[in-house]
Amino acid sequence: MNAAILSTGDELIIGKTLDTNAYWLINQLTNLNVNVVCQIDVGDVKSEIRWGLESAISHAELVVMTGGLGPTDDDLTRFVLAEMLGVELLLHEPSLRQIENFFAARNRPMNERNRVQAMIPQGAEVLDNPNGTAPGIKVSIGQCAIFCLPGVPREMKGMFDLYVKPWVLERTPQTHFFRKLHCIGIGESDLVHKIDDLVREHRSKVIFGTTANEGIISIGLAGKDKSALDALERAIQLRLGNIIFGCDDQTLPECVGALLRQRRQTLATAESCTGGLLGKILTDPPGASDYYLGGFVCYSNTLKHNLLSVPEELLITHGAVSDPAAQAMARGALMKTNADWALSVTGIAGPTGETAEKPVGLVYIGLAGKNGTQQVREFRFGSPGREVVRFRAAISALDMLRHAMSD
Amino acid sequence: MNAAILSTGDELIIGKTLDTNAYWLINQLTNLNVNVVCQIDVGDVKSEIRWGLESAISHAELVVMTGGLGPTDDDLTRFVLAEMLGVELLLHEPSLRQIENFFAARNRPMNERNRVQAMIPQGAEVLDNPNGTAPGIKVSIGQCAIFCLPGVPREMKGMFDLYVKPWVLERTPQTHFFRKLHCIGIGESDLVHKIDDLVREHRSKVIFGTTANEGIISIGLAGKDKSALDALERAIQLRLGNIIFGCDDQTLPECVGALLRQRRQTLATAESCTGGLLGKILTDPPGASDYYLGGFVCYSNTLKHNLLSVPEELLITHGAVSDPAAQAMARGALMKTNADWALSVTGIAGPTGETAEKPVGLVYIGLAGKNGTQQVREFRFGSPGREVVRFRAAISALDMLRHAMSD
Repeated sequence: MNAAILSTGDELIIGKTLDTNAYWLINQLTNLNVNVVCQIDVGDVKSEIRWGLESAISHAELVVMTGGLGPTDDDLTRFVLAEMLGVELLLHEPSLRQIENFFAARNRPMNERNRVQAMIPQGAEVLDNPNGTAPGIKVSIGQCAIFCLPGVPREMKGMFDLYVKPWVLERTPQTHFFRKLHCIGIGESDLVHKIDDLVREHRSKVIFGTTANEGIISIGLAGKDKSALDALERAIQLRLGNIIFGCDDQTLPECVGALLRQRRQTLATAESCTGGLLGKILTDPPGASDYYLGGFVCYSNTLKHNLLSVPEELLITHGAVSDPAAQAMARGALMKTNADWALSVTGIAGPTGETAEKPVGLVYIGLAGKNGTQQVREFRFGSPGREVVRFRAAISALDMLRHAMSD
Repeated sequence: MNAAILSTGDELIIGKTLDTNAYWLINQLTNLNVNVVCQIDVGDVKSEIRWGLESAISHAELVVMTGGLGPTDDDLTRFVLAEMLGVELLLHEPSLRQIENFFAARNRPMNERNRVQAMIPQGAEVLDNPNGTAPGIKVSIGQCAIFCLPGVPREMKGMFDLYVKPWVLERTPQTHFFRKLHCIGIGESDLVHKIDDLVREHRSKVIFGTTANEGIISIGLAGKDKSALDALERAIQLRLGNIIFGCDDQTLPECVGALLRQRRQTLATAESCTGGLLGKILTDPPGASDYYLGGFVCYSNTLKHNLLSVPEELLITHGAVSDPAAQAMARGALMKTNADWALSVTGIAGPTGETAEKPVGLVYIGLAGKNGTQQVREFRFGSPGREVVRFRAAISALDMLRHAMSD
């Protein structure tokens, strides 16, 4: 089945909102074995919406449209639908009552404007919205089914699961298989080169692709022949070994957390340039308190000394961004928290702060372990921007611990 | 001038990459007073790319296309262009030499496949790419100028600035004015209600919109009449007062940082449920070391006691998620770091960890000041998801400090 996604809203076109709805919908539909042939964003103008809808219909049997169902003057979806179908808008009494109840429950007067949210093109199907005021609308034009959902992500997602997903499942055999393998510590082109022969061998049966996201390279495999896909996956696993840290929806913090949990060990952190980001990504997975104790953000040298006992002479002689400082920070965090492992990060995230010897992107990561482990690695991330340097520093720290636990 | 953005690539359509290129381009073009009428994503299929390009051309005088210029079989942009123009692809010698040099400089053999990146439709303009191998291509079809740029964000952005921007500036009077006002501590509908009369008064001259992003509501104003826009802005500022924390590209951490810097004061943090996120966003702006000393991530109760001297009895009696715990954490951080201010965050981010009395989304934020300030506020963010609860907790902490400094 071919599908098109149509997102309406001036806020998309004037770039204030990143269209995460479309991203989510593409993922959902692809996982349901639907072929998303295009995604179109249009502003809140009748002629544009109509053009977008006509373009979408001409390419797909399913159109999922988001936005434009609200009560204000720039909510035009229902009007365009009625126009294209050549029908009137009719008041849908149950929807009106639901909207009235919504306001009554909040002790707020209902604005007359909200009445329009209960106006539905004649003959259309009303899709009840359990999380908000505006109901959705389903119509058919030619061979194409059009689901109009609200633009509010939470409402949209709930209604996708309620209406679009069952509709698709009824019509599409679920015969596509997917697998993602996530790698770290290798460049994209080197990785592709390393497994090129395996990919070619399975080319006729398995679609292969890679995406790179700031140091994490993900291999995507897709195909209808599960045994061919499994065979290629095993071959890649064997070839790449420990470069692969996880698969499908697993994240690096989850994988490192799982290793810690399995070994019943705990971790502490001592961060300078990442300012808390390492702790933040460690605690993204729920339940991180099983293994992550916490740690220190020592942005100033004074705190590196006062909280982590990094000697002042060391900071003066070598500087805060140095191998000995990273080592002392990790050791200090280990001692102060009594954790099994401690990671430290110190570097120059930029754009300011670089010196002749220490360029932006220079980062030292330290690892200390109760078992006597003492490692420091130097990274040179260059100048891809402050955010990227910090992110790469944080994931590189996790990866260093991962290797220490699994090598 | 109307513009359309066309992004090609299976990785967009299969949802693995969020199309940040399109988002960036929309922002740039809008700021150049260009009207972006649509944004289309298509997969790596010739017929889809052609359809996308034809749709874009029919709506715009400028099309910016990204992706599909690489060396592999799924890079089809140049072939579609040649087909639509009815011309041949010719080898562009200077581009070939540049690609050869690129590989030579890296001591890597050039793959024969890379030759295709120097193939250009006859009569097209070659756009030199200073940051990568693939040159861009510019062609005209009818009244429409089409810029084809690489999909790699850094290369695409550099080439936009080099070629597209000057082309637009030559043709578009820069007569649009924009202003954004960022608010916190109020809901979107309450905010709109509060200034509805002002907005109506200026409706004929100033376009008004709001966007909400997890607790931060941004008001957008746009128009050609600068004095009308300024008048509405002043009226809104007067009406909303301290609810507005900044304008245009200012972020909350920057605004709080500016207040601290202005007062030559320092800040420390003590985080539990945010796990380092508060420190991370405080250090997003470069130069944060002027006012942010660092702090503690006390994910475990042991560390709350050992590092921040939160009394064990207090943790037993009231629990770690409580008003007294937040107060003790902030006081502890203040004392241990000697900062002027200390913020603490403790709460239940979910989805696990809730109890009968303490639901997911319950967060206590503490503020302690050298001047004697001692505040704790309770927040109930509900269950919008772990990430949202943590983000709202972090920005609410910053906002509490902002009020303490400016009230």
